[in-house]
Order: sequence, then structure tokens, then C-alpha cells
Amino acid sequence: MNFASDNTAGVAAPILEAIAEASADFAGSYGGDRWTAALSARMAEVFEADVAVFPVVSGTAANILSMAAIARPWSGILCSHDAHIMTDECGGAEMLTGGAKLYGIDGRNAKIDVDVLSRRLETWPGGVPHHVQPAAISITQASEYGAVWTPEEVGAIGAVVRRHGLRLHMDGARFANAVAALGCAPADVTWRAGVDILSFGATKNGAMAAEAVIVFDRALADSLPFLRMRTGHLLSKSRFLAAQLLAYLDGGLWLELARHANRMAARLAAAIEATPAARLAAPVEANEVFAYLSASTDRALKAAGCAYHHWTSGIPDAANPPREGEVLCRFVASFQTSDAEVGRFAEIVGAG
Amino acid sequence: MNFASDNTAGVAAPILEAIAEASADFAGSYGGDRWTAALSARMAEVFEADVAVFPVVSGTAANILSMAAIARPWSGILCSHDAHIMTDECGGAEMLTGGAKLYGIDGRNAKIDVDVLSRRLETWPGGVPHHVQPAAISITQASEYGAVWTPEEVGAIGAVVRRHGLRLHMDGARFANAVAALGCAPADVTWRAGVDILSFGATKNGAMAAEAVIVFDRALADSLPFLRMRTGHLLSKSRFLAAQLLAYLDGGLWLELARHANRMAARLAAAIEATPAARLAAPVEANEVFAYLSASTDRALKAAGCAYHHWTSGIPDAANPPREGEVLCRFVASFQTSDAEVGRFAEIVGAG
Amino acid sequence: MNFASDNTAGVAAPILEAIAEASADFAGSYGGDRWTAALSARMAEVFEADVAVFPVVSGTAANILSMAAIARPWSGILCSHDAHIMTDECGGAEMLTGGAKLYGIDGRNAKIDVDVLSRRLETWPGGVPHHVQPAAISITQASEYGAVWTPEEVGAIGAVVRRHGLRLHMDGARFANAVAALGCAPADVTWRAGVDILSFGATKNGAMAAEAVIVFDRALADSLPFLRMRTGHLLSKSRFLAAQLLAYLDGGLWLELARHANRMAARLAAAIEATPAARLAAPVEANEVFAYLSASTDRALKAAGCAYHHWTSGIPDAANPPREGEVLCRFVASFQTSDAEVGRFAEIVGAG
Amino acid sequence: MNFASDNTAGVAAPILEAIAEASADFAGSYGGDRWTAALSARMAEVFEADVAVFPVVSGTAANILSMAAIARPWSGILCSHDAHIMTDECGGAEMLTGGAKLYGIDGRNAKIDVDVLSRRLETWPGGVPHHVQPAAISITQASEYGAVWTPEEVGAIGAVVRRHGLRLHMDGARFANAVAALGCAPADVTWRAGVDILSFGATKNGAMAAEAVIVFDRALADSLPFLRMRTGHLLSKSRFLAAQLLAYLDGGLWLELARHANRMAARLAAAIEATPAARLAAPVEANEVFAYLSASTDRALKAAGCAYHHWTSGIPDAANPPREGEVLCRFVASFQTSDAEVGRFAEIVGAG
Repeated sequence: MNFASDNTAGVAAPILEAIAEASADFAGSYGGDRWTAALSARMAEVFEADVAVFPVVSGTAANILSMAAIARPWSGILCSHDAHIMTDECGGAEMLTGGAKLYGIDGRNAKIDVDVLSRRLETWPGGVPHHVQPAAISITQASEYGAVWTPEEVGAIGAVVRRHGLRLHMDGARFANAVAALGCAPADVTWRAGVDILSFGATKNGAMAAEAVIVFDRALADSLPFLRMRTGHLLSKSRFLAAQLLAYLDGGLWLELARHANRMAARLAAAIEATPAARLAAPVEANEVFAYLSASTDRALKAAGCAYHHWTSGIPDAANPPREGEVLCRFVASFQTSDAEVGRFAEIVGAG
Repeated sequence: MNFASDNTAGVAAPILEAIAEASADFAGSYGGDRWTAALSARMAEVFEADVAVFPVVSGTAANILSMAAIARPWSGILCSHDAHIMTDECGGAEMLTGGAKLYGIDGRNAKIDVDVLSRRLETWPGGVPHHVQPAAISITQASEYGAVWTPEEVGAIGAVVRRHGLRLHMDGARFANAVAALGCAPADVTWRAGVDILSFGATKNGAMAAEAVIVFDRALADSLPFLRMRTGHLLSKSRFLAAQLLAYLDGGLWLELARHANRMAARLAAAIEATPAARLAAPVEANEVFAYLSASTDRALKAAGCAYHHWTSGIPDAANPPREGEVLCRFVASFQTSDAEVGRFAEIVGAG
Repeated sequence: MNFASDNTAGVAAPILEAIAEASADFAGSYGGDRWTAALSARMAEVFEADVAVFPVVSGTAANILSMAAIARPWSGILCSHDAHIMTDECGGAEMLTGGAKLYGIDGRNAKIDVDVLSRRLETWPGGVPHHVQPAAISITQASEYGAVWTPEEVGAIGAVVRRHGLRLHMDGARFANAVAALGCAPADVTWRAGVDILSFGATKNGAMAAEAVIVFDRALADSLPFLRMRTGHLLSKSRFLAAQLLAYLDGGLWLELARHANRMAARLAAAIEATPAARLAAPVEANEVFAYLSASTDRALKAAGCAYHHWTSGIPDAANPPREGEVLCRFVASFQTSDAEVGRFAEIVGAG
Repeated sequence: MNFASDNTAGVAAPILEAIAEASADFAGSYGGDRWTAALSARMAEVFEADVAVFPVVSGTAANILSMAAIARPWSGILCSHDAHIMTDECGGAEMLTGGAKLYGIDGRNAKIDVDVLSRRLETWPGGVPHHVQPAAISITQASEYGAVWTPEEVGAIGAVVRRHGLRLHMDGARFANAVAALGCAPADVTWRAGVDILSFGATKNGAMAAEAVIVFDRALADSLPFLRMRTGHLLSKSRFLAAQLLAYLDGGLWLELARHANRMAARLAAAIEATPAARLAAPVEANEVFAYLSASTDRALKAAGCAYHHWTSGIPDAANPPREGEVLCRFVASFQTSDAEVGRFAEIVGAG
């Protein structure tokens, strides 16, 4: 039972095979290969748009490159207090932008509240040089607390962003899980709703190390080749990045893997809801489960060797705080999570 | 015939297998896995020292992290005019150090001349705040023009570096080729000769995307976990980086692959020396061959589909310039270069 | 009636005279002059310590240099939500540190609460590379809401800072007003209480453009000559900076000017307390007055040509919010504020 | 006899008076004052153009702000090997641009050679992400070796700059001396010849600490208010910066002071040319004199207490190297240099 994170999983078999196949012969380096070319075409189909695609090896890489593409050193970037770029990337966005400032915006389940955002922007002292100037909004899909943004919700943020002449970034570390949950077209929840640039994640959902910056507004792409190179994120054997992503997209593998993870998470959630010894701390909309556990249930799971995290850096929703004796825990399901594992979990929790 | 670069090759079979094997089960993320732990122990053996090891995906990543570990924003870094960090990493060192300045030092075949270096440091206006202050020297092993630094030569640089209280970095993008050529212990040409920090390359010699920053003076390692994270170079599924490097080192694979590449380069060189239609532009000491070709030989090779680069960014040695009608070309052999390819090259050149 | 800010005042006469006198002859440039040498000695007397002194032209310059001296690019700097470095310097600290992150800490009247600070540091995931690491605390004396830190209060912060191995910076833009209010030795409220580095302000209190970074722990001073030069803050005719500061300190002028400003602020406060048409929003401890005004009083003052700011970026104390119809306003007294102006203000407010 | 630098002089009397006058009353801070407004209008007249004006306290400040306005982090900036931004600002341009790279271009007397520049740009691998991309050219007027760029010469550089879509910066630390020498309109040697942005110097020519970034292409001015603020270069009492510059321009004072300095330099040069014991190392076109002195003349001047620099960081012109026994020296005349001082110099040199 390993629910510690979706990045504790291995690599999906078709992706491993694609890596091996791509190795057979010589190929152009630094992106001058046929896999990279095919990936751009493939992403254009997936997103129904003439996107610019920059494959990289990590979500942090995709995020900091995106931030540097849309913000200047004196920019403000507004995001959730719990956004990965805010809390978990060791100031990478601040570094690569040359000193931009991240501002936390309130909201539930790590989704920023559109009204809070709107008020903040309306009262910003725009143009006054004493103050950092708002340039970008970043939202995470699915959010750090497992919530999924609907096309309508993204569109509402997008409308505010446009009104203020800003740019909208989506951190899609779990983009596949969100799209699988929504059942919508990838375009619906990105550029059609106002997203300018996307960190398209694959690693958490079955790739080895592969993400991509997807740029919907090509005017934003000019700086990215240079930013990627100077951060060491243009791989010499780029074909292996592209090959992973092609296999990931091929035949809808990405959504298939994500649907499995989501299903496993739903079963974990159902087990939690079925027992008085635990309760959900946030709605389970993708592949993450945040739950308050009784101390005894927590002990029982740990004793059974179940891997998961005690969550101490915050709670999903201020309106739903822990009660006396409860422990906030995070469980993440992945493409590799098995029915057996989830069944075992349900048993322990049911007995907890 | 593909001699365009050693990074146009694929992945050595044992490394591909190691990747597949590492994927079998769940494992701790962000370096909390058994491969990463084993790699540190293995590198300590290879280098006969208590090294700190930071695996990353690219040579540029290793170099910029190394630079940021040993230089401050107002530092000067001295290296060859032709150093990769100087010419090919799009200012990555400048970026991650916060604005350090790279100074080119003369020398032959992209090796800096120890006397030129020494004079430069002796006349530096040390401590004067108008001027950037020297902090680090970087040399490349094998050099960008295919020259190998002997332990004695590195030691001579190391002595100058110590005398001035600076730090010595080695860009070992082709470290295996150099060590294979020298037949020495890795320690002899690194820390025993005064190297403080090494960019240990594997990608050009058979890995998919794997290099490592090797820190010999652990005092320099404190900043690296944070620098690696914020540049997006700490992989969530780190085990796959470590697995590549373990397989690379296992049973001396790295030196075996490098010896093959060097041998192929030597045969290319022999073919060039055997014909009046071409001549070497630099000694061939590792796996790179720089040669002046007659126009007709160049045409014949291109016509035969041979892949290699016309080299326009400089010449290896000012004392050996091109003659009328000659074209400077670079040929690189890799672990994947075949005897058949080299034989075909020799035929064409012989007839050229 | 100009209470808009203490920096709307001119220059105190003795300081103007000192500038003129310093101009008489040739003098060494870039700090190689007798005024600069004398200033270091004079500051050592004022602070009863072997301080390193770096004169600069602005408080923002002093603050960003201080931040860069004590923080690294991956550092966290903790300060009040209302700190000048947080809100009013356009991200200067983020820029010069290479991307450090500022964290707001709760407290009243822009003073950080020592218990909140302590808890925050105790729960910081220290050493985890995902997270920015705390390096420095910055407090402002007098605070942005006009509160004065006593030696005991600074000492309490200093103790927390030491316990966690951090550094303590004091933004002393209104240091003179605070020291004048406290009647203590400058050392008591700085290094004796744990302050490592001080932005010593003079501009708001009668200088033309003169502040100084005062470094109590000389180990922190090594980088400052270079940081000052590369930010354009080492003046060629440095003598004029030093001359201003010498005149400012001479015969206790600085405290005399500050006492006057404080006295004028106290009279403004008294006038406010004497009328039902206004009330203080924060205790008046130095030369700033934050007050809630009735709409009619506000109109009357504006109509009389009184210059002051409507304060919209926050309130001093969450426990003391505005009531219906009240306007939060800031009035600042300076060395140039006259009894007549204050009298006129009292009249209008009294009638308000 | 102080010829050490033009920044060892004091402040011209009318400028001192203007500072004192500006102090009389309250005034808006951070540039919201009538002096700053008047300065913009005045500079528009001087340059016959709708310029944007950003007063700052130092030449390094003006230069680094200019560089950051026209270059991106991955930009190359081309300038003389001897340019102040290259050698004397401790990497300020690298810092504020976020890691741009400066490239030295050959030329005589610290003027870059237009043909060398042109060839360099024509062979630049444009758009290749491995390589920093050229963005800006910077020339110094008068040059670091005292040479003056004519409108035609600037225009030739400007044409190359336009052809390659780059920007042209002029470091005008001694702009007044150059314009006085040329007798042309300031516009002729700036925007009419293709200059986009100018560091307009005043400090070396009689101001206390006052320079200005003059932006001819207003599209380049957008970032400057924020860059100036975050580097600590927006003064709260900005009126004193503007007042200095207004007095400097008023009634042509700036050119009058510069003409005097140039005249004094010409007399120094004449004295040198009249003696066999010394010879000019570079043409004297503004207020700097570079000369090769015999050892005995050097000793005689030093013995007489004459202040000047032995110049060890280079020579003006490779075609005119020092002869056996000669010492390269720099003498700078300023507005404060007296006929008596120059006469005494001539006497000693004549007897040398």
C-alpha cells in the first residue's frame, strides 16, 4: 500500500517501451529529431491549437520557465497560498524571473477565489513604481488539495485576467487527472477558458521524467528557447523526452492512466466515507484524497505498512478544520495503484 | 556514418535495462530511494573519496550548479575562450550565479595556459570594489577541442588556484573518454590534482540523460540541494537518474564505452593522417577529431551521407591555421560508432 | 500644513552648510576622502562598537544591500506584512538577493509578534530543499505605523533569531525618531539587543539624501563593497554623503531634529484626542500619526490645504478597525514642521 | 596639482546654490516636485526631442539601468574591451540584466571599430538557443581613453545597430566634454545618429552626484520606473537631483565648464608635446590626457605633489605601445582645474 505520492510509482510499460525503441539509432540532438517534431504536431491535435511545445524533465522546470515567460523581475504573480510554485519549488519562480513576488490569494481547497482575486486587482496601485506590478495569475489543475477547476471556473478567472491585461498560467502537474475527471476537451479547460500557458504534467501519471510547457499565445514563446537552454533544461538527447510524451498521448494512454488513478482515489474516498473513524477533509475530484483520521485508524494504517503523508503545512478549507484528536492525511492514487492495495486499505479503515 | 556528435547516439543497452528494472515497484521520490543511496556509495569508491553527489539530467545543469556553488554574483570565473560554459550554455553560469563574469584565458586546443592564467591572477586588482573578483577556474576534460589534461597539467592549474585562494571546477562532459585515454585513477585527475568540483558526464558516453555534480570539498555542497531544487533539477522520480549512473559505472562499463569511442576516433585520425587530402587540426587524444579537409574531400563525405559539423566558431590552435581552400571539420566518435562506419569514412577520405 | 511625509521637508541648515564646505577643494573619490574616514570613526563612537559603515543615498539602497548581505537566493526573510521592504521597494530585496522570498508575520502596528515569529520558525521544515530556508528577520524602527521597539522588545526578537541561527536586520528609516523617543543609547536598541545590521536613516530627518548600512557583525560586511559598487551606490564624490552624515551626527543634531519632529507629532496626536471628530488608529510613539477622521474633518483639512495621505493599504491594528464613515489618514511631522502648522491643524480638527 | 580624476573636484558654485535654494520649502517626494517636472521639459529642449528622463546619482546607476532597459537576461552586449561597464562597475550590468554577457570589441582609444563590430554581428549564430543573442551596443562619449565620437562615427555604429535590430546605448559620463569639443547639437551625436538611450553625466563636470538616463525611444522607458525604484535609485527628495541638473544646464553652464576642462587638458597635452621627456599615448580630444612619461619626469611630478594615475590596465592603442622605460599615465582636467596648476605642470615637465 503506497499512497505517499503519485511520483513514487514507476513508469507505465508503453512509455518504457517507447524509450527503448527511440534508442535504436542515431538521431539529431537538442530537439532536432523526429520525435520532437512529431510531439509538436501531436500536441496541436490534443489541444486543437497551434501551440508551441517545450518538453522538460520536471514540473518545477515547466513552472519556472512559464513564470519567466510571462513575468518580469518587478512583477507580481498571484496564486493560491498553497500553490506548488509558492511553497514547494524553493523559490524557483523568484529566481528565474529575476525577483518577481508571489502573492497568496484566499480560496477553498487550494483554488483561488475569483472574487478575492478580482478585488485584489482592482485595488492594486497600478503603475506606482514603489509597488510590484501584477503580471500573472497561476492556478493548479487539479489543485494541490485535489480539487478540479471546471471550464466555467477557469473561464471566470480568465475573464478577470483579461480585464486587467494579465496572463494566466495553469500548473497542470495533474492535468490528466483533471481532464479525465471533467470529461471535457483539453482545450475547454485551457485556452478556450483563457489560459495562456500550461505546465503539462506527465511524470506523476506514468512518465519517467517528462513534462511540457505548452504555449497557447505564441507571443509568449520567444524567450523560452533561451531560458530553457540556460537553465540546463534543453536535453542533448531530447528524443527521449519527446518519445515519453508521444507514448503518453498515444491512443489516449494518458487519460486511461488518469482514469484508473481517479477511480482508485474514489474507492479510497468511499472507504473513508463508510467509516466513522475517518472523514474527508476535501472533496475528492481527481486522484488525491485528503482525510481526517482518528488516531487509532492512523496507527492501524501505519502498522500495516501503508505509506502516506501526515499533512502539516495547512488544511484544505478553513471552514472544515480538524476536530480534537484528528490527523490530516494525504493519500494519492496513481496509475500503478492496485485494486488489492485499495481493498486492503478499506479493510483496515473499516476496522479502524 | 554519423559523427555529428556523441550525443546523437542512443542509450547503451545495460543502461536501458537498468531503467526498466528500476521501474518495477514503488520507490521514494526526490532522491529518497535506494538507487540514489547506492550511487553515492559507488561514486565514493570510484573517486576514493567522501564525495557529495548530485545527479542531474544535463551537462549544462551540472555546470551551472557547480558555478553557483563556487562563485558569488560579483565573481570572475576564468576559463578557455572556447569553454562550453563560455560559448554554448546561453549564459547559464551568469544567470545562476546572479551575474558573475566569465573571462577567457588563452591556450592551445581549448586548454588554458597555466602561465597566462598565473599572470592574469597576479595582476588582478584584488579587493578593489570596482572590479569583479576572481573566484573560480573552470577547465574541461577532455577539452572542447579534444585535448586531454594529464594529472600533472591539472595539478599545475590546481597549484595556481590554491595560491590565489580560488576554486577549481572541471567540466567532465567527456570525463570518461579522458580517463580512458589516461589510464589513471579518476582521483588522480580530479581532487588529487586540486579539483574541487566536477561535472561528471555520462550522457555523451551512453546514458540517456544523466550527469552528476561531484563535490570533493563538502563545504561547497551546502547550497546545492536548494540550487538544484529551484532550477527544477531535482527529479521526483530520481531513481531513474541514479539507475542510469549505477549501470554506467557497473563493471567499468563507462570506461569500456569510452575506450571504444576513443579507438574509433583514433582510427578516424589515422585515416586522415594517411591521406594528403586532409590533416589534423589538433592532436586526437580522446573521441573528438578536428581536421582540415580539402574541399573535394568535404564534398565527397557529404555526398556519401556522412554527418559531421563544419566548425566555424574558432580553430583549435592559432599556431596551426587553415590553409587556402581547407575546411575545418569536427568528427566525434561515440560508444555507438561502428567499425563499419569508420571503415567507410577511411575509404572515402583515402579516395578524397 | 504639510504632513504628507517627512521626506517632503528640505535639508537642515547645518547639513547644507556641510555640503558647501566639503566642496572647497579636491578630494579623493569613491570614499578615499577624509569625510568618509571620519564618518567611520564617528559611527563607532555613536554605536560604541567597531562597526563597518557604508553610506548610500536612499533607504531602499540601505535595505536591499543589507538583505543581500545576510540572505542567499534561496533564503526566507521574515518581516511585518507592512514592512517597507515588503510593500514599497518594488521587490528590491528579491532582486538583489537573487530571488529570496519575504514572509509576512502578524503583529500590531507593523511590529512583528515575537510568539508568532517563534512558532513560525519552530515549524519550518528546515533543510528540506523544496522549501526556502529562513535566514533573516527584518524589523523597522520606528515601525511603518509609527510604533517604537524598546530595547527589551528588540532583545526578545534577537533571542529568537539567535536560537535559530538567523540574522537580524533593522530598517532604521526613522531610527533617530525612535532613539529620541526611547532616550536610550543607540547600541541598546541595536547590537546589544541582537541586531546584526542596520539601515541607518538620515534623509527623512533632515539630510538631503544620506543613509548608511551599519554592520555590527563585521563578518557580514565582506560582500558589501562589491554589492554597493555594482548597484551604482558607491558615489564618486562620496565625501558629500559622508559630510551630510557627519553634520547630522555632529553635536547631536540628529536627535535634536528628531525630538522636534516627535514633539510636533505628539501635538498632532493631542489635537486628535481632544476632538470627538477623530481618534488615533495607533499609539503615537515617534513622528507618525495614524488617525481615523470623520468625513467632515477630513473635508475641512483638505479644504484648508493640509497635505496628508489617505491610508488605503491596511490598518495598524486588526483589533482597532475603522468605524462606519471614518477615514484612515497618516500625518507625519518632520524637523521642518512648525508650531504654527500644528496649531492650525488643531484649530481645524477642533472645529471638525 | 590634482589631475587624478575629474571626480576629485568639488561642486560648481551655481549647482551648490541651486541645492540650497531647492531646500527652502516642502516639496513632493519621489519626483513629484516642480524641479523634476522642469527638468524633463529642459532636457527635451536640450535634445530637441520628446525624451524620457530618469535622474540618478551615479554613472554606474545610469549605465546599469540603461542596460536593463535594452537587454534581456540572455542578451549579449557589445562594447569596447575598455568600456567602464565592462571593467569598472563590478558586474553591475550582468547583475541588473539578470545575467547578460558583455563582449569586448577591438578598436583604438577605447572606441569600437565599426568593421570589427559588423563582422562580429554578421557571423553571430542568431536564434540558436545555445548562444547568448546580441541585443545592444554600448559606446562611451568621450571614450575611456579620451577619444570623442563624431556624429558621423556614431552614425556608422548606429547604422550597423539598426541593420541587426539592436539598440544603441551611449555612456555619456563625459558627454559634456565631448559635445563641447564637437561644437555640435546634443541631438546630432545621440538620437540623430542612432542612439536609443544615453547615460547623461554631470558629476564629473561639476555636479555633486547627478546623472540621468535619457531615453530617446520611449518604448524603452516602460521598465525604468520599476528598475530605478527596486535598485534604490529613486530618491525621496528627488528635487535635489533635478535641481543640480537644472542648474547644470542653465545658461549653458554645462558646456562652459566642459570647455574649461577641455582647454586645460589641451594645455597639458601641449606641455607634453613640447618636451622630449614625454609623449602622448592617445590624441587629446576632450579632458583626458594619456601620456607616456620618462621615469625621471614621472619622479619629478610625483615629487612635486602632482596627483595622477599610473595606468596599468591597458594601453589606448596597440599600434602605439610604450617604449623601454616609459610609464603610461593619465591626467584628467576638470572644471576646477586652474591655469596655475597647469602652468606648474608644464614647468616641471619642461624641466623633466
